[in-house]
Amino acid sequence: MAAKKAKKTLDDLFYETLKDIYYAEKALVKALPKVAKAAQADDLREAVEHHLEETEGQVGRLEEVFKLIDKPARAKTCEAIKGLTEEAKDVMKDFKGSDALDAGLLSAAQAVEHYEISRYGTLKAWAEQIGLDQVVELLDATLQEEKNADRTLTQIAEANVNRRAEAA
Amino acid sequence: MAAKKAKKTLDDLFYETLKDIYYAEKALVKALPKVAKAAQADDLREAVEHHLEETEGQVGRLEEVFKLIDKPARAKTCEAIKGLTEEAKDVMKDFKGSDALDAGLLSAAQAVEHYEISRYGTLKAWAEQIGLDQVVELLDATLQEEKNADRTLTQIAEANVNRRAEAA
Repeated sequence: MAAKKAKKTLDDLFYETLKDIYYAEKALVKALPKVAKAAQADDLREAVEHHLEETEGQVGRLEEVFKLIDKPARAKTCEAIKGLTEEAKDVMKDFKGSDALDAGLLSAAQAVEHYEISRYGTLKAWAEQIGLDQVVELLDATLQEEKNADRTLTQIAEANVNRRAEAA
Repeated sequence: MAAKKAKKTLDDLFYETLKDIYYAEKALVKALPKVAKAAQADDLREAVEHHLEETEGQVGRLEEVFKLIDKPARAKTCEAIKGLTEEAKDVMKDFKGSDALDAGLLSAAQAVEHYEISRYGTLKAWAEQIGLDQVVELLDATLQEEKNADRTLTQIAEANVNRRAEAA
């Protein structure tokens, strides 16, 4: 008789979700240079390049979290980020040469930031519940970076891109 | 010789994104009853059922927006919501019978809310830019509902589910 599978716990859910966001961050390291290249406005391109650097650091932070919970750093296909980056690709293709391209890129980038803010918020809450103090600190550092990135994108959108798109 | 395609504008981007969120809301009307059925805690189930009613209203509001911009109400496959609901399905399957199931459902639901908050925030900003005052009001009404839904989910998560999952 096969052994009965152990009941899954919050620790399992935490690990599964960690693998999901690890996949997502690594996918973004590949996707962001394409967004930076497509961007028309300098401030948008610079913001994306800056966030690419942050994202590389966030991958490293996740690897520290895997070590702290004594589990292998593995990526699990994240369907959400696949969908989100797919939408960004559609915008780059459909709005190439349009003055509304940057507005579309900003919208896609903010959808990604919101996904990450949600994921890191959840992971941080679970880490607090499980009592992983060092992990909470690492996740919070990334969470604050994602919130800042979202605020920066909002400022760029308000100040520049939408106005330019409308003037087209 | 084929006529040169007109350059795409912010109006086009607005319409494309409207079709995307219309698809997403309709997909959620189908998905939320499954989440409500799977939920273990009464407060989570009630919150999801309440948000299902709101979501049906949001579909109607989007149809009003389509009318106001004088375009047909069409849905365009939204890869992001497909990915997000796929993740929710995985949680329901992998954590069935686990005390961490509700924590997983809450996490999936909050990821969806954040996606919608991002989309409606963007659409509202574009509608302001284009000068569609009535549309801005409709989009803002939905945006506030999504933000409230997210806050409610956070409260439920903090008060109940995570604690229960950890005690398992």
